[in-house]
Amino acid sequence: MGEPSGIGTEITLDAWSRLRDSSCSFFLLSDPAHVAALAQATSPSVPVTIIARPDQAKAAFAQALPVLPIALSAKVRMGHPDRRNAQAVIDAIRQGVAFCTAGQASAVVTNPIQKSVLYEDGFPFPGHTEFLAHLAGGTYDAVMMLACAELRVVPVSIHESLASAVGGLRADAIVRTAQATAAALARDFGIARPRIAIAGLNPHAGEGGSMGREDIDIIAPAIAALKASGMDASGPFPADTLFTPRARQTYDAAICMYHDQALIPIKTLDVDGGVNVTLGLPFVRTSPDHGTALDIAGKGTADAGSLISAIRMAAMIAAHRQMHKGIAT
Amino acid sequence: MGEPSGIGTEITLDAWSRLRDSSCSFFLLSDPAHVAALAQATSPSVPVTIIARPDQAKAAFAQALPVLPIALSAKVRMGHPDRRNAQAVIDAIRQGVAFCTAGQASAVVTNPIQKSVLYEDGFPFPGHTEFLAHLAGGTYDAVMMLACAELRVVPVSIHESLASAVGGLRADAIVRTAQATAAALARDFGIARPRIAIAGLNPHAGEGGSMGREDIDIIAPAIAALKASGMDASGPFPADTLFTPRARQTYDAAICMYHDQALIPIKTLDVDGGVNVTLGLPFVRTSPDHGTALDIAGKGTADAGSLISAIRMAAMIAAHRQMHKGIAT
Repeated sequence: MGEPSGIGTEITLDAWSRLRDSSCSFFLLSDPAHVAALAQATSPSVPVTIIARPDQAKAAFAQALPVLPIALSAKVRMGHPDRRNAQAVIDAIRQGVAFCTAGQASAVVTNPIQKSVLYEDGFPFPGHTEFLAHLAGGTYDAVMMLACAELRVVPVSIHESLASAVGGLRADAIVRTAQATAAALARDFGIARPRIAIAGLNPHAGEGGSMGREDIDIIAPAIAALKASGMDASGPFPADTLFTPRARQTYDAAICMYHDQALIPIKTLDVDGGVNVTLGLPFVRTSPDHGTALDIAGKGTADAGSLISAIRMAAMIAAHRQMHKGIAT
Repeated sequence: MGEPSGIGTEITLDAWSRLRDSSCSFFLLSDPAHVAALAQATSPSVPVTIIARPDQAKAAFAQALPVLPIALSAKVRMGHPDRRNAQAVIDAIRQGVAFCTAGQASAVVTNPIQKSVLYEDGFPFPGHTEFLAHLAGGTYDAVMMLACAELRVVPVSIHESLASAVGGLRADAIVRTAQATAAALARDFGIARPRIAIAGLNPHAGEGGSMGREDIDIIAPAIAALKASGMDASGPFPADTLFTPRARQTYDAAICMYHDQALIPIKTLDVDGGVNVTLGLPFVRTSPDHGTALDIAGKGTADAGSLISAIRMAAMIAAHRQMHKGIAT
């Protein structure tokens, strides 16, 4: 569902139109009355049907978007989040994960949430990723990867100030992030021996220490440890030339030292919609890489490209995992 | 000339081939014997001719690449910079600027230099830009802009560690950089009322101060001051969504808070070769946005795209300045 007053519902309707003939099917956890109202307003050609259980989704999908009901408490005013609906937003995530854990769904794709409204309602997690790690049992080291056809990036730190990301950079976090990334690329993307490029922190990766020592003192030792463990890891590379079209051919994922170092290049490309993939969880989870877009919600102008990419990638990862499970048994 | 053992000479030969029929002409300040040797090795179809004065370049250009001699002290081994040639590299820059100042040339385009070799020889400037400001009389506030067809970016700080760029961020530097950028876009690019977008520093521009206060305490006041002065300035914008194809339509230049925030997006695009333009000098100066590429120098495989863009942009800026001069008199 995501934030019901955001663009999540209309892009899901659009995604159904564009994926109805594809090999993957999905269902929406949301309030059927809200979905029907949005369909009328933004996507009159999309029929909606109510299902009671996930196993009814596949048959229903060819004719209509299947909606598994999660009741909203307050009537939705598009563009205006209401904290009375926060619990339903959280329940939808929880329910989606529960279906995955029970083997009734292959993956969970989350529409964008409005964190401020969830916080007002007492939601104790910084964001989706931490909540999902909690639902998984709390012992998982969830790592955020942003992926599009041209590039995969994984930031070592996410939602903290740049000063704190720089001051708090540690070799063990780089090692852990690179290991989670390599493991996920092998298991979920079918890349047997992933090539992991590690970005530098400073301009020109510090140019021999003349512009900051973190590249020498923190990042290089992390890369040495990764290589010693047998990983195809390399760097630290100057971040400005790590994302050129030519450089992008030389690795399967880039480990980035802070939020914007990872997100700037992928959103600059923004070709067919980037996807946010949570690595390291026992279930498959993807998400579009944009927000709730409250300013255009309900107008039918939102681009479903990133959500469609997220659904397709979730199906691809789930297929890889099922194949691996088949091999393992 | 730039570093003679780097790719500068061969890309200049290639640029002549591709610009010989265009409306702009140029000459190379270098050692004719070195240029002839490179031409034979990498560009046998490019004839080279020696000129004694800049005013001979235009007539000579249609038939051959004009070279105005600057003697090298040591024989060049491609890929191996020699400090005995450092003085010639510096002399070429100085001579190019002198021709501009005297009105004998319209612009100076600098090939990449190998700074470490110049430092060994006692060169006291951090880089090209600072040396050029010194040649201009030292009172100019030179600002580096990176430009390609899709994007123009100007970093507030350049060659310092990220920790120092973050810790040293000041409102007056942002204001000065934005003013120099707006003035240059008006004078040199013909954009009468430039739209200046200012990037935030922290993830999501700090999200209301929850991830760092610099966006509120330093950047927002700078933008307020710029607006008060009448500039079409806006921000602080989250840096990750400031360079998407859609966002790039909304401004003429983006002011960035640190080196890689500016350089990552432009090099990620790298479509037809980014150009480094020095704003705020009394003469026109551009440069390709890559280095000496010692690893491939002399092999004839270097891409002249960025140098060609730099030459074309220098010609365009010079034409704007000459037009303005015409209006002023």
